[in-house]
Amino acid sequence: MFKLLFVFAVLILSSNASVQDFCVADLKGPESPAGYSCKSVTKVTVNDLVFSGLSAAGNTSNIIKASVSPAFAAQFPGLNGLGLSAARLDLAPGGVVPFHTHPGASEVLLVVQGSITAAFVSSANTVYLKTIKKGELMVFPQGLLHFQVNAVGFNSVAYVFFSSSNPGLQITDFALFANDLSTKLVEATTFLDEAQIKKLKGVLGGTG
Amino acid sequence: MFKLLFVFAVLILSSNASVQDFCVADLKGPESPAGYSCKSVTKVTVNDLVFSGLSAAGNTSNIIKASVSPAFAAQFPGLNGLGLSAARLDLAPGGVVPFHTHPGASEVLLVVQGSITAAFVSSANTVYLKTIKKGELMVFPQGLLHFQVNAVGFNSVAYVFFSSSNPGLQITDFALFANDLSTKLVEATTFLDEAQIKKLKGVLGGTG
Amino acid sequence: MFKLLFVFAVLILSSNASVQDFCVADLKGPESPAGYSCKSVTKVTVNDLVFSGLSAAGNTSNIIKASVSPAFAAQFPGLNGLGLSAARLDLAPGGVVPFHTHPGASEVLLVVQGSITAAFVSSANTVYLKTIKKGELMVFPQGLLHFQVNAVGFNSVAYVFFSSSNPGLQITDFALFANDLSTKLVEATTFLDEAQIKKLKGVLGGTG
Amino acid sequence: MFKLLFVFAVLILSSNASVQDFCVADLKGPESPAGYSCKSVTKVTVNDLVFSGLSAAGNTSNIIKASVSPAFAAQFPGLNGLGLSAARLDLAPGGVVPFHTHPGASEVLLVVQGSITAAFVSSANTVYLKTIKKGELMVFPQGLLHFQVNAVGFNSVAYVFFSSSNPGLQITDFALFANDLSTKLVEATTFLDEAQIKKLKGVLGGTG
Amino acid sequence: MFKLLFVFAVLILSSNASVQDFCVADLKGPESPAGYSCKSVTKVTVNDLVFSGLSAAGNTSNIIKASVSPAFAAQFPGLNGLGLSAARLDLAPGGVVPFHTHPGASEVLLVVQGSITAAFVSSANTVYLKTIKKGELMVFPQGLLHFQVNAVGFNSVAYVFFSSSNPGLQITDFALFANDLSTKLVEATTFLDEAQIKKLKGVLGGTG
Amino acid sequence: MFKLLFVFAVLILSSNASVQDFCVADLKGPESPAGYSCKSVTKVTVNDLVFSGLSAAGNTSNIIKASVSPAFAAQFPGLNGLGLSAARLDLAPGGVVPFHTHPGASEVLLVVQGSITAAFVSSANTVYLKTIKKGELMVFPQGLLHFQVNAVGFNSVAYVFFSSSNPGLQITDFALFANDLSTKLVEATTFLDEAQIKKLKGVLGGTG
Repeated sequence: MFKLLFVFAVLILSSNASVQDFCVADLKGPESPAGYSCKSVTKVTVNDLVFSGLSAAGNTSNIIKASVSPAFAAQFPGLNGLGLSAARLDLAPGGVVPFHTHPGASEVLLVVQGSITAAFVSSANTVYLKTIKKGELMVFPQGLLHFQVNAVGFNSVAYVFFSSSNPGLQITDFALFANDLSTKLVEATTFLDEAQIKKLKGVLGGTG
Repeated sequence: MFKLLFVFAVLILSSNASVQDFCVADLKGPESPAGYSCKSVTKVTVNDLVFSGLSAAGNTSNIIKASVSPAFAAQFPGLNGLGLSAARLDLAPGGVVPFHTHPGASEVLLVVQGSITAAFVSSANTVYLKTIKKGELMVFPQGLLHFQVNAVGFNSVAYVFFSSSNPGLQITDFALFANDLSTKLVEATTFLDEAQIKKLKGVLGGTG
Repeated sequence: MFKLLFVFAVLILSSNASVQDFCVADLKGPESPAGYSCKSVTKVTVNDLVFSGLSAAGNTSNIIKASVSPAFAAQFPGLNGLGLSAARLDLAPGGVVPFHTHPGASEVLLVVQGSITAAFVSSANTVYLKTIKKGELMVFPQGLLHFQVNAVGFNSVAYVFFSSSNPGLQITDFALFANDLSTKLVEATTFLDEAQIKKLKGVLGGTG
Repeated sequence: MFKLLFVFAVLILSSNASVQDFCVADLKGPESPAGYSCKSVTKVTVNDLVFSGLSAAGNTSNIIKASVSPAFAAQFPGLNGLGLSAARLDLAPGGVVPFHTHPGASEVLLVVQGSITAAFVSSANTVYLKTIKKGELMVFPQGLLHFQVNAVGFNSVAYVFFSSSNPGLQITDFALFANDLSTKLVEATTFLDEAQIKKLKGVLGGTG
Repeated sequence: MFKLLFVFAVLILSSNASVQDFCVADLKGPESPAGYSCKSVTKVTVNDLVFSGLSAAGNTSNIIKASVSPAFAAQFPGLNGLGLSAARLDLAPGGVVPFHTHPGASEVLLVVQGSITAAFVSSANTVYLKTIKKGELMVFPQGLLHFQVNAVGFNSVAYVFFSSSNPGLQITDFALFANDLSTKLVEATTFLDEAQIKKLKGVLGGTG
Repeated sequence: MFKLLFVFAVLILSSNASVQDFCVADLKGPESPAGYSCKSVTKVTVNDLVFSGLSAAGNTSNIIKASVSPAFAAQFPGLNGLGLSAARLDLAPGGVVPFHTHPGASEVLLVVQGSITAAFVSSANTVYLKTIKKGELMVFPQGLLHFQVNAVGFNSVAYVFFSSSNPGLQITDFALFANDLSTKLVEATTFLDEAQIKKLKGVLGGTG
């Protein structure tokens, strides 16, 4: 029996050198198109593979009465390169996650409290709209515009999961109004009225 | 303004023909290495993109005091080809999801009720073990052995999400003991004692 | 020498059966998440691999003074599965391709006549804006909002190329206003004023 | 214990429906860019996952004194979609596998009898040349020109493995001389002399 | 309204840390199989996403009366990891881009001036040949031999686009004759006559 | 002719900068989810692309009467990022490679001496079992449990090839018994008897 131990130890040690079961992000190392660099396996502990940042409710004391808390690879380094990430949505009564896209991933939403009216719009401009109840799932295909709105008079909570560890997030209103793109260009490329654009630039901190 | 409508309608109609934002599984069509065939977009409704099958608790009145309810592409056709799927775990007090792997996907676990002690074992045989509380996440890298055990004296519930719409599921005990692989070969390839093998083959319905 | 001929003929014939150098789309066959079914190689001619549909200028006699002509796999079946597609942009003086995304691909733009002011907005809401002259290239990373505007007083023409044979196209205005999503939900999820929404719904044929 | 059996049976049956551990090629079904359609799992036997076609030596009684026997998905359907395939090389004394590429895969060569002088040429035109002995491996990166020549005075045998189930095979001489491409165009695009082209067209069955 | 600003700012800042919408190549950083390292987003400007190097005609005062100007990730770092790249072809009267392959990408050609006779050869040695006019597209599937020849008596210009940011380029004549591979081995592996090989080695700077 | 040389030299030099035909692993550089960093091309020699480590028989003087010698990217750096790797199996009479999985790759086995009885178990718990003779191939789909046993009274030798340069290796017995996972948890998650677990922990060096 001793020999078994010995021989396998040799095997394990040699294969050990090539182990890359996972690649916990080293946020300070060089990034590649495939994601963050890997933290040395010898320094990885189970705490790199567990994330507590979505346990607590987000702060919904704001005008959208909602919050979005990401657990992407930047927040939860254990996800790096594994093709998965998550976020938590808290929606107070009247809460809204406005129209947005994830440029790099599809999404599945799970309601864990309350009910949420959600929709996405396809390339053919068809609206897929439904009120999702606790324990139900809804899928949002990659890159398509979608939103979530609280459907009940108390707090709703959902977790969403993505098919990438860096799904990205582009909130349409922020992309259009929260930067220095000139009002004239926004007008030309959205058909919105000048007054409307200036109003939202004001609210969201845009200039130009 | 009428012209805008007209021109864009032409654009939309032509691009319409090429739309494949998603590929809801047609479970009766031919399968390819990329997944199921796509249901015609004209027949897709929002109900294809929503899944209610994980709303209700699974039946845990069994010896493992647990149940696993999958929402893979075969159960939730809207996920087909989108690189995502899910499952619900119900664990009664003492409940266990025994050692298993998903050959085709990484997994993220979200505890939504109670607490769950979970672990995976790396290629280097290191155990990454932690008790995951409500709202916490744990990641299980692709293909590695892992398990989940209820950590509290009441029902725990978790949802798990996968980086593939067909992650697969191989429960080690079933792979070893619930088929007609001869006791002699199981003994030779697992180092387990003959009596142990025969006992588990008896429990799990294996022969040989 | 005869033998060489013979032996290689055998090799070629047998390898012939497995040839899948390309997969010209059979638009009537079943689709999979990987794209269209393949037309039989024996029926493929060079004309399946060549596309003339972008030779002629598109019609810009419309309110945006622009046209977009796609050469995706649905229009140019020879591209199916090869990770590439194209489109032609014609922009009359004052012409605009409004804000839009391609959910499934990155894009490179090549100006072949005139000059075009183009921009995309990143996830961090930074605007990358530049006027692109004849012979210059600009890249638009996957899924991000972008637009193109004619920068000169005569017709500009550009060709764009995508990293997928089915890149998709979602024009923000159409997604928001050209369907039956209720004005109330659009208002809640975009922060736009009701009057603005109703005006654009009217222009673009939306209801609700 | 009976309950365990029952509960797991339910789980297994339901997950059974979604099983796609592999996709044995149904050579008569529709093809997709991802490969052949899948044979029904209920009809698959172990014989679909085993291939005996490379057991016997190929016929080297020909002018190149060599033979190449493929085990791609078309010959070995069990490989379909698994990212792997193989071929057997038999090289009599003086035997040569002429310059060729595999457009869709990298290759590893294993010599199992004799010795083989092999080389590939990089994009920078550097030659990587070595005589590979029994039990040694050499890698040929995707798409690059390479060849194999018997290095000993008796039969050499090698097996090669590819990173795709449909790697493709393009033998340069055949691509240039074994079809109806006009001598004039071959001359213009290869810098070869007309007489040389006509000679090889004659040998390899080309016309024009 | 101030609160909206505040809450979203928090969201944006936190998601900001994980933004990897694109990965402009840092040509001095470590390379990975996925491409070059990423330049810090804070240092990226629109000029990294725009490329002017293909605006001017290449020099065709040479024996092939043609030039090929690449815009791969090494020349146009903004393309890194986005699955796209480009090149410009200038063909004077009689100009030729000789037989070559791109080991890592499929290609689409767009003629913007003149006409070009182009062809590729499939694994089955079938020639797909056509004269492509201004505004037409032709696709060349990954890794297959192809060429382009000017079809008119004046300068023709084309742009080609690739399905990878590092498509590679292997010109058959250079791979065979522009290095130190011995004449004997070239003869054995191409069936070309010794004199022909020595002649082309002389022209292209090869030795051996 | 001199001009040809000159112009192409320019082309080659410029394209040279972007060459990444392969990415020989620099085992000391940062790792990414796509694999090891690339060694500088200027330092690569053919010896990086050739591997002799599998030429000699492994040591089978141990209790399993077998050895497994890996040629993954960590041992054979030339494979890095090319989607291929290999291993050599030596099985003395009575030799066994016990149940194991490769979390990140499918596998093809080639018997080069003797005969080997091999099997894998699918997600549906079906056993695919066959005795493979010299020159035959068997495929093991990604992530599924499988084993190999010598089927003859003399040494058998096989080479296996993987669809990844880092396939991983998880031997079930080692994952269960060769670490510090408590006997109680192993018992709960495998249904094995306590005595059996303690016995194997003793043999394999586990604790707890």
